[in-house]
Amino acid sequence: MSKLTASETIILGIDPGTTIMGFGIIRVQGKQMEFVQMNELILRKYDDPFTKLKLIFDRTLELIDTYHPDEIAIEAPFYGKNVQSMLKLGRAQGVAMAAGLSRQVPITEYLPKKIKMAITGNGNASKEQVARMLQSLLELKSLPKNLDSTDGLAAAVCHFYNQGKPTGAKSYSGWEAFVKQNTGRTSE
Amino acid sequence: MSKLTASETIILGIDPGTTIMGFGIIRVQGKQMEFVQMNELILRKYDDPFTKLKLIFDRTLELIDTYHPDEIAIEAPFYGKNVQSMLKLGRAQGVAMAAGLSRQVPITEYLPKKIKMAITGNGNASKEQVARMLQSLLELKSLPKNLDSTDGLAAAVCHFYNQGKPTGAKSYSGWEAFVKQNTGRTSE
Repeated sequence: MSKLTASETIILGIDPGTTIMGFGIIRVQGKQMEFVQMNELILRKYDDPFTKLKLIFDRTLELIDTYHPDEIAIEAPFYGKNVQSMLKLGRAQGVAMAAGLSRQVPITEYLPKKIKMAITGNGNASKEQVARMLQSLLELKSLPKNLDSTDGLAAAVCHFYNQGKPTGAKSYSGWEAFVKQNTGRTSE
Repeated sequence: MSKLTASETIILGIDPGTTIMGFGIIRVQGKQMEFVQMNELILRKYDDPFTKLKLIFDRTLELIDTYHPDEIAIEAPFYGKNVQSMLKLGRAQGVAMAAGLSRQVPITEYLPKKIKMAITGNGNASKEQVARMLQSLLELKSLPKNLDSTDGLAAAVCHFYNQGKPTGAKSYSGWEAFVKQNTGRTSE
């Protein structure tokens, strides 16, 4: 995937989970975006958690080395049912982030609500609503049966809509601020 | 660090946290173990969580490339105060594991209790008791002021004591089993 002009940007969006990892890639030039790829990595068939982490790490590296994204956007919820599931989710996020870190690709993370809001204008939109809006925005002929890959794609599009606004490390400060504002919702 | 004989094994022990990462290295030959190194990486002075993750990833890679460990042992608690802290801990563990995965070094994780038990015979031993026992076992002239690096070293020694017992991916199955046995303790 060669860069045609200096202003072209490739964004890789990832939704790393412990049972499935969704990912999507868009190419952006000025205010135009173009669909490149989306897919999912099924992890639930593997029993061993280390195998899952290795698959997430390897696939993310492979995507970086194939599509040379300039930026990575990660869908990162930070509330969950229990501490174990959050530890596992954190590990999945951690290995995906490590793949980006190891190739020096800037990473921005977005809350699921923020992604839904950016795509549909509604932070509580359903997976299907997000997918249908992506289909329209990116002129996709069809949608995949399983909507986990559209979640990855949605992260990439959300990041495109957030260009010019604080991104990268700063979006993380927002994360910290959000946690402080929402301590009542933690399980402490 | 060249391998003198085929039976020599280098074990890197890591205690990855979000404020500090402790690590220790031992060299093992037959039933003999020898202290190589221990230190800590202070993370709390960095505000940006991505910087912390990158430091953990880079330092772990550097340790692997410097000491060529044959095995990595990670201290991995999986109960915590709240879902946010476990997500952050999971990310820290994830990037440390990704460093091992990227260099194909087998990783085994141990619960803190299991490490304390292996070193002192008491699963509830204090940090100081673990450190003093390590000092005696490894004939250390002195102990560091801060005992986070001894936690990393303790993981390495625990792994040495567990050689011949199920390790690697299998130790993870034990983890899964433990979770199932302890669901009453989760925050679900």
